[in-house]
Amino acid sequence: MRIARAINNLIEGFERLPGVGPKSAARLTYYLLHVPQVELDKFADAVRNLKLNTKECNICHNISESDPCDICSDSGRDRGIICVVEQPLDVLAFERGGRYKGVYHVLHGIIDPLHNIGPDEIKIQELLKRDASEIILALNSNMEGESTCMYLSRKLKIVNCKLKITRLAHGLPTGADVQYADETTLTHALNNRREF
Amino acid sequence: MRIARAINNLIEGFERLPGVGPKSAARLTYYLLHVPQVELDKFADAVRNLKLNTKECNICHNISESDPCDICSDSGRDRGIICVVEQPLDVLAFERGGRYKGVYHVLHGIIDPLHNIGPDEIKIQELLKRDASEIILALNSNMEGESTCMYLSRKLKIVNCKLKITRLAHGLPTGADVQYADETTLTHALNNRREF
Repeated sequence: MRIARAINNLIEGFERLPGVGPKSAARLTYYLLHVPQVELDKFADAVRNLKLNTKECNICHNISESDPCDICSDSGRDRGIICVVEQPLDVLAFERGGRYKGVYHVLHGIIDPLHNIGPDEIKIQELLKRDASEIILALNSNMEGESTCMYLSRKLKIVNCKLKITRLAHGLPTGADVQYADETTLTHALNNRREF
Repeated sequence: MRIARAINNLIEGFERLPGVGPKSAARLTYYLLHVPQVELDKFADAVRNLKLNTKECNICHNISESDPCDICSDSGRDRGIICVVEQPLDVLAFERGGRYKGVYHVLHGIIDPLHNIGPDEIKIQELLKRDASEIILALNSNMEGESTCMYLSRKLKIVNCKLKITRLAHGLPTGADVQYADETTLTHALNNRREF
């Protein structure tokens, strides 16, 4: 196929992104042909500087501008409560709400023996070294998430048997219809029902 | 929300692309945090050089590396047959098949009075100046496409009344089930039926 190298390079670049197929990649590339060069330069700089201008926080291992990160160095946050998440994107989800006033710990993965990810591949040792009065396990509720939660709570109890370990509530999401809820969600919602 | 500026810049960059919402933009950005810097630099260069290393062909107005483009300067192609398309991406679709041996003319748009796009906003004058024995109108079959086709064929006939003007066939696409075909497609397929 006769296609300019510059166009092909960018199509290939987009194709490497998750969830972008060959047709979307071509569509995005041809869209950018109509965008002013200033905008293209800005986008290119943003790509190039993404990792150059970010650091991993030494305390919570979130990706941030400074080390320690804004959240860990904020004296207004309760450092006694640590919310354990899988990925930096999960921190973003909590911060979007803006109601959580504790700090975080990003594991950068989850224990997944089928993909050769053991406890040493993720930031578990770093979590065990941290001081806290409560640990909130906010991992995704799939099989790997559940077993990582079990592993973590056992290890955390060994280090500090008085530590309060909690999990996120499971139940109906906001706006959900009861008739469309799956069995497991409804069972959770029933078991964890609260007085009105 | 506390989020590193470098991350925010890239999320905003992705959000400007068509079909990429805030959540996909964040997902793509956080994915790129795990990609080696060499790859990021390559992607950034591809974005920056997209327009710097491409030209618009003076004959067919396709986006290409050289002017005239590879296709227009290829002596193996029949310059008497011009396939008129809306966008450079349409040329790509034809070239993917590799069976078309004529040349192209990219209009860079379509007559669309509702969006203030008249005949002078797209490359119609440039088409009328070209020499050809056959013009294939390969515009999309929506209302704007149909009316642009009608406008073009009238104008082309004024310039050269012996010019052969054709349109792409309409009918069932390859692999389509008759039971799921819409009425218009089936009517086209019936009207244009061919002897077996």
